[in-house]
Amino acid sequence: MSNTLTDKVWSREEFEQQLREKGRGYHIYHPLHVLMYEGKLSQKQMQLWVANRYYYQIAIPIKDAAILSNCPDREVRRGWIQRIFDHDGSGHIAEGGEGGIEAWIHLGAAVGLTREEVTSLKLVAPAAKFAVDAYINFARQRPWQESVCSSLTELFAPHIHQQRIDSWPDMYPWINAEGMQYFKNRLTQARRDVEQGLAITLDYFSQSRALQERALEILQFKLDVLWALADAIMLQSCDVKIENGVQYVRQDQV
Amino acid sequence: MSNTLTDKVWSREEFEQQLREKGRGYHIYHPLHVLMYEGKLSQKQMQLWVANRYYYQIAIPIKDAAILSNCPDREVRRGWIQRIFDHDGSGHIAEGGEGGIEAWIHLGAAVGLTREEVTSLKLVAPAAKFAVDAYINFARQRPWQESVCSSLTELFAPHIHQQRIDSWPDMYPWINAEGMQYFKNRLTQARRDVEQGLAITLDYFSQSRALQERALEILQFKLDVLWALADAIMLQSCDVKIENGVQYVRQDQV
Repeated sequence: MSNTLTDKVWSREEFEQQLREKGRGYHIYHPLHVLMYEGKLSQKQMQLWVANRYYYQIAIPIKDAAILSNCPDREVRRGWIQRIFDHDGSGHIAEGGEGGIEAWIHLGAAVGLTREEVTSLKLVAPAAKFAVDAYINFARQRPWQESVCSSLTELFAPHIHQQRIDSWPDMYPWINAEGMQYFKNRLTQARRDVEQGLAITLDYFSQSRALQERALEILQFKLDVLWALADAIMLQSCDVKIENGVQYVRQDQV
Repeated sequence: MSNTLTDKVWSREEFEQQLREKGRGYHIYHPLHVLMYEGKLSQKQMQLWVANRYYYQIAIPIKDAAILSNCPDREVRRGWIQRIFDHDGSGHIAEGGEGGIEAWIHLGAAVGLTREEVTSLKLVAPAAKFAVDAYINFARQRPWQESVCSSLTELFAPHIHQQRIDSWPDMYPWINAEGMQYFKNRLTQARRDVEQGLAITLDYFSQSRALQERALEILQFKLDVLWALADAIMLQSCDVKIENGVQYVRQDQV
C-alpha cells in the first residue's frame, strides 16, 4: 500500500504510463468480447449486444452535458461540446451529419434489428442499465475534472474498434459493411477526444500523488462500468453454467 | 398489451394480488440463492455473499432518508422514520438497540469475516454497487410514492428470511447461530413495514389503471435490483462457464 502523503508526485510521463497500464482491465478481455472477436457469437447474441450497447450510446451525450453543466471553464466547454455533436449529430442526416447514435441504429439494422427494437430499449438488460446509469450519475455528482478522467477508457477504445473492423467481415460476413461506420468514425474521434481528456487529467491530478492515485481509482470505476455492462449482456445472451454444471436462469425464465 | 386508457381500475384486492404475483421474479429463485438454500455454497462463497449484501444493508437508511426528504406528508414521515432506526439503531448497543447494520456485521463475524473486512467494502463487486446505487438514486430522483412502492419487495422477504433460519443450521452448522439475529429481527420488522408501504401504494396508485400498471413496473425495477445484485455476487464467487464450456474470467483475473 502506498503512502500518498510521503510518496512523491509521478512525473507527467510516469502518470500517463500508470493510466495506460489500467488498460489491462479493459473489456476487450471480457469473455463475451473474446468470443465475439473469435467469431463465436450467433446472430441473436450479436443483436443483444448491439441492443444493450445502444443504452450506453445514448447515455454518452447526457453524460457529456452533465460535465458541461458542472464546468465553469469556458475553454474546456468549447472543446468538450464537440462530443455531444459527435453522438447527437450536427447537420442534416443526408449530409452525413447524423452522429454516433444514428450510426449505432444503422449497426442495429446491419445485424437485423428494426429501429424500434433498438430505440424502444425493450431488449436492454436491467443490469446493463444499472452499470450505464452509474456512469451518468458519476458525471452528474462528481467534480467535472473527475468526470473528464472517467472518460479516459477512450485511451483503449481504438484497439477494440480496429479489432471489430478487422475481424467482423471474416467472422460475421452476414453483417452489412455499412453497419461498421460507427467504429470507423470513432477511430478518428476517440483519438482526438482523448487528447483533451488526457491533458486535463495530467494537469489537474498532478497537483499531488494522492490526486494521481485518485485518478487511477476513477479510471478503474469506468473500467468496472464497461466490464459490468459486458457481464449483463453475457448473462442475458449466453448459455451459462455455475459451479458443477448448474444451469443459470434469468429472472424471466423462473 | 393492455390499454390503460380504457381498461378499468383494478379493485384494491385485485391490485394487491397483481403486486403479490410479482413475487415470481423475487431473488429467492436466483440460482445463487437456490444453491445457498441447498447448502451447496462454501464458506468463502457465503463470506462474499455477506460482504456484498452489506453494501445493500448500508444503502437502506440512505434510501429511506431520501424518501423522507422528498415527502411533504408529516404522517407518512412519522411512520417511515422507524425504518432508519431499524437499520442504524436507536439505543445503546449493549441495550439491544444496535440496529440492522450492526446485526449484519455480526453475521459477517459468524461466517468468519472481521469487522474491517465487512465495513471497508473492499470485497464488494462493482456491479453489486451499481445495482444498489440504482435503488438509492431512484429514491432520490423519483416522487416519494414511487419510492415507497419500490420497497414492496418486503412483501416477499419473510419467506426468504424464514428459509435461511430453517435451513442454515443444518446446511451450514459452522455458522454461529447468533449471526442469524438479523433475519429473525426482519421477520417482525418487514411484516410491520410492509403494512405502511402497501397502504400508501394501494391508495396512491389506485387513482388510475395507468398508475396501477406503473406500480407494477416500479416493483419490477426493484426485483431487477435484487436479481442483478445476486448476479454480481454469483459472477464474483462462483465457478462460471459460458457457451460451450468457456471459463468466465473476472476483470481482476485477466
